[in-house]
Amino acid sequence: MEWLKETLEITTDGKGLYPFTPQIQSSLHDWEVQAGMVHLFIPHTSASLVISESYDPTARQDLEAFLEHLVPEGQSWYRHTLEGRDDSPSHMRSILTATSLSIPVDEGKLSLGTWQGVYVFEHRARPHRRNVLLRCLNVR
Amino acid sequence: MEWLKETLEITTDGKGLYPFTPQIQSSLHDWEVQAGMVHLFIPHTSASLVISESYDPTARQDLEAFLEHLVPEGQSWYRHTLEGRDDSPSHMRSILTATSLSIPVDEGKLSLGTWQGVYVFEHRARPHRRNVLLRCLNVR
Amino acid sequence: MEWLKETLEITTDGKGLYPFTPQIQSSLHDWEVQAGMVHLFIPHTSASLVISESYDPTARQDLEAFLEHLVPEGQSWYRHTLEGRDDSPSHMRSILTATSLSIPVDEGKLSLGTWQGVYVFEHRARPHRRNVLLRCLNVR
Repeated sequence: MEWLKETLEITTDGKGLYPFTPQIQSSLHDWEVQAGMVHLFIPHTSASLVISESYDPTARQDLEAFLEHLVPEGQSWYRHTLEGRDDSPSHMRSILTATSLSIPVDEGKLSLGTWQGVYVFEHRARPHRRNVLLRCLNVR
Repeated sequence: MEWLKETLEITTDGKGLYPFTPQIQSSLHDWEVQAGMVHLFIPHTSASLVISESYDPTARQDLEAFLEHLVPEGQSWYRHTLEGRDDSPSHMRSILTATSLSIPVDEGKLSLGTWQGVYVFEHRARPHRRNVLLRCLNVR
Repeated sequence: MEWLKETLEITTDGKGLYPFTPQIQSSLHDWEVQAGMVHLFIPHTSASLVISESYDPTARQDLEAFLEHLVPEGQSWYRHTLEGRDDSPSHMRSILTATSLSIPVDEGKLSLGTWQGVYVFEHRARPHRRNVLLRCLNVR
């Protein structure tokens, strides 16, 4: 068994879902991994990871609007407002979604479902450069 | 160390929690795994994974009702309605729960807590056949 | 590759976030792990795991208040009330946050972001002794 690692960089331009499945796939290809496990970890507290519908853009728009409804900005009881209106909501949105994800690899590819894509969910209004730590256990 | 894999099939009959702990346990038994890690991944965007109370059926009923309240169908701002009223809500419910889960194995068994069970959470009204990818790192 | 295991004990005193990053770090130090993966699993249905802001205490207070707003106690439709008003909400809060988390280890340390801390999120009002199962794959 072999341990492989890389840090992916995802540039975000405001709140929303940013797909990066091809970047993971490209690392697997470079490493010539056939089977094993990919572990993703996002070292941020105001952006998170999700796997969701990758085909119809309206599905993505609904997910983005959904978090705005579920975790609205500007609630009177928010105390943590030092870095702006989107500060506390960004931490709340992060704990409701994922900080780490593990995806099987088979026949050289992520074993995602037909409609699944891997996304960084940016919860901040301003542009950011986000890291995703990619670790892979290559089992042969 | 040894890498073991299988695809579990879980038949669902409308929205709700479908337990499958015994199916995982059965694979571990067949493989004669003593210790290691089980990784579960669901390759669907309208069903997800949860670990929760397995003893009292009212706990399950409350969890099912909770998601109906938290992510109601038929909101006026939903755009992704091509596949029905439960389409967009099913993706929302999926990102709030889990797509991947990792559970330790010790002494030949999943190290779940006394009251914990592993479930597929079906978010679609119609019956489905769902896959769960089971991967196991057998450490001895 | 080497497989290491330990059970961490976290004492909670009512609802809220309890940090335990140093306990994980201490195990890694004792084991002399340089690189690999840490897997955390909480074998409880009324407490969960989150990674979030560790610097400003108001961020923590907002996260705690947020779950009270999102999953209020005493809803008329709750059926699972045998063990008290916080019983069903504790399971709901658990499935919205994490039961398992995987964090990369590099240069002998958890590869957390600058502001990230690892927490047990206690969802019960009364004091508890919670276990967290720590598993580590040491890759060299």
